Amino acid sequence: MKLKISFLFCCLISAGLVAQPSIQEQLGHAKDTKLLIIHADDLGVAHTVNEASEMVMEKGSVSSASIMVPCPWFTEIADYSRAHPKADLGLHLTLTSEWKNYKWGPVASKTEVPGLVNKNGFLYSSVDSVYMHANLVEVEKELRAQIEQAKKFGVDFTHFDSHMGALFGNADYLKVLIKLGREYKVPVLLNKSGPRSAFNVSMENYLTEKDVQLDGIYTANPADYKNGMENFYINLLKNLKPGLSEIIMHAAYDNSEMQGVTIDHPDWGSAWRQADVNFFKSERCHKLLQYLNIQLVTWREVRDKLLR
Amino acid sequence: MKLKISFLFCCLISAGLVAQPSIQEQLGHAKDTKLLIIHADDLGVAHTVNEASEMVMEKGSVSSASIMVPCPWFTEIADYSRAHPKADLGLHLTLTSEWKNYKWGPVASKTEVPGLVNKNGFLYSSVDSVYMHANLVEVEKELRAQIEQAKKFGVDFTHFDSHMGALFGNADYLKVLIKLGREYKVPVLLNKSGPRSAFNVSMENYLTEKDVQLDGIYTANPADYKNGMENFYINLLKNLKPGLSEIIMHAAYDNSEMQGVTIDHPDWGSAWRQADVNFFKSERCHKLLQYLNIQLVTWREVRDKLLR
Repeated sequence: MKLKISFLFCCLISAGLVAQPSIQEQLGHAKDTKLLIIHADDLGVAHTVNEASEMVMEKGSVSSASIMVPCPWFTEIADYSRAHPKADLGLHLTLTSEWKNYKWGPVASKTEVPGLVNKNGFLYSSVDSVYMHANLVEVEKELRAQIEQAKKFGVDFTHFDSHMGALFGNADYLKVLIKLGREYKVPVLLNKSGPRSAFNVSMENYLTEKDVQLDGIYTANPADYKNGMENFYINLLKNLKPGLSEIIMHAAYDNSEMQGVTIDHPDWGSAWRQADVNFFKSERCHKLLQYLNIQLVTWREVRDKLLR
Repeated sequence: MKLKISFLFCCLISAGLVAQPSIQEQLGHAKDTKLLIIHADDLGVAHTVNEASEMVMEKGSVSSASIMVPCPWFTEIADYSRAHPKADLGLHLTLTSEWKNYKWGPVASKTEVPGLVNKNGFLYSSVDSVYMHANLVEVEKELRAQIEQAKKFGVDFTHFDSHMGALFGNADYLKVLIKLGREYKVPVLLNKSGPRSAFNVSMENYLTEKDVQLDGIYTANPADYKNGMENFYINLLKNLKPGLSEIIMHAAYDNSEMQGVTIDHPDWGSAWRQADVNFFKSERCHKLLQYLNIQLVTWREVRDKLLR
C-alpha cells in the first residue's frame, strides 16, 4: 500500500500537481530547517589528519569526512571505519599527489593508467596536469580501483567527493563521478550554485531529480585564513540559509608530521588545519550551532533516506 | 708506472708471495685499526625517521644511512641527499611493507611484479611471504626500479643493503643483490661471519676478492632493548675488534607519527628508535669512540677507495 501511495505521489509531482517536498522534508525535518554537514577532507593522507579528524568527529562538531584511498595512511582510517560503523565516512576520490616531499601513486597498476602518473610514478601534483595527460578511461579505471579497494577494506562509504576538485572542473570527469555515485547508490557532492557548482560545466541535462544537490558548499580560502578562521566560520554560520549545506574543513594537529607534509605551502598547511580543529572542537562552535538552530546531518542520512 | 707496480703487486698477492693488505690498510689506516660504520636504517619511511637520522648524522656519531625508495617520504630524503652531497646515503632495498596501518607498494608497476604484491596491492608484510610468492625475475625488476628511481632523483648512493634482511636470507636473492652491487660499483653489506652472514647460504664460490666483506655487523635485538640500549652499545663498542664493522641503528623521534607507524609493535618501535637516537647523539658515545680509538668511516670511502 505504501508503494502505491508513493507511486501516486511521484506521478502527481511529475504532473506538477503537488509541490516536491524540500530536501529538509525528505530528510525528516521542517521545511525551512538549516541543515548542515560539517565535513573533514583528506582522511588517510597522514596519521595526524586521521587522529585530528577522528577527534573533531567524536568530540567536536564535525559530522562527516572523506577518505583518500591511494594515500599511505588509508589502512589506518579503514580500520577506524570498521571499528566505528556509525562514523560518516565517504571517499575523497583522488587523482593528485600535491605535496612537495610526500608522494603516492594510483591504486590501479601504473601501467594501466599511464596518463595519471608522472615520470616518477606518482600522481600529478596539479589538477591541470591531470587534465593534460589523462584520458577518461584511465580516470574511471582509477576511481573504480579506489572504490573497490575501500569496499575490500570494509569501508561502508556514505558519499563521494573529489580531492582538489579534480572531478568537479571538467564536465566529462564529473559525469564519470555522477555515474559512479548512481551505480554505488551514494550521493555525490554537488552544488546547486556557487563556485564549486557543477553547472559551470553544463551539467543541467545530465542531472535528474534523484541526484542530490546541495544548497551551498563553503570552505575557507587563503584570504579567509589570513583574516582569522574563527571570524570566517562564525560569519558563515550566522549567514547560513535554510536548505542542505556543507562546510568543508581540514583537520590536523600542527606537528612535525604535518609541517613536513605541507612544507613550503602555508595555504591548507599545518597551522591552517590546526586552526580548523580549534574552531570545530570548540564549545563556542557547538553553542553557536545550537543558538542558530542549525541542525547537523550526515551523508549517511542523505544516502539512506534519499538513495536507498 | 703506477699501473705496472699495481699489476705486479696483484700478481704477487695472487701467487701468495705478498700478504694482501688488510681492509684498514686499503682504506688508508694502520693495519689493526678498529674501523666502524655507524649506520641508520629505514630513511624515507617516515618524516620523523628522516629528521632524526639527519640529526644523528650531522650532530651525532652516525656516519652512514640507507634509504627505502618505495616509501612515501623518499622524495624528502632524496632532496636532502642532493642538498648534502657529502652525506653517506645508500639504498635500503625494500621488498616488504611491514607496518600495520601504514603501507606502500612497489616502485615497479604492480602488474610487472605480481608476486611481490599482496591482494591489496601493497608489498607483503613478511619476508617469508615474499619468498613464498615472488620469483627472481620480479625481485630483480623491482630492485632495478628502486635503484633507477634513486638515480633519477639524483641520489649518489654509496652502498646497498636490504630492508628486513629479505635479500640476505636466500642465496638466489643475495646473488641478485651482489650482482647489482658489482654492476653499479657500490659495496653491498656483507658479513664475513655471524648471524647476518652471507655464508649461511653457501656464497663462498660466488664471492670474489673484489666483494667487500665486513668483519662484523651488529644490531640490537629485543632482549638488548629490554636490558637498556646504552648498556648494549657501550659493551659493543668496548668489545669491538680491529677490522671494518658496522652497527645498525634505527633513528626516529618518539612522537605521534612514529607511534602511529609502529603501533602494536614495540620491537623496533617508536621508543626503541628514540633510545637509539639518545645514545648516538650523546657526548658519552662520542667520547667513548675517541677513548677506544674507534675510527668512524663511511661507505663512500669504501666505495671510492675499493671499488672505483
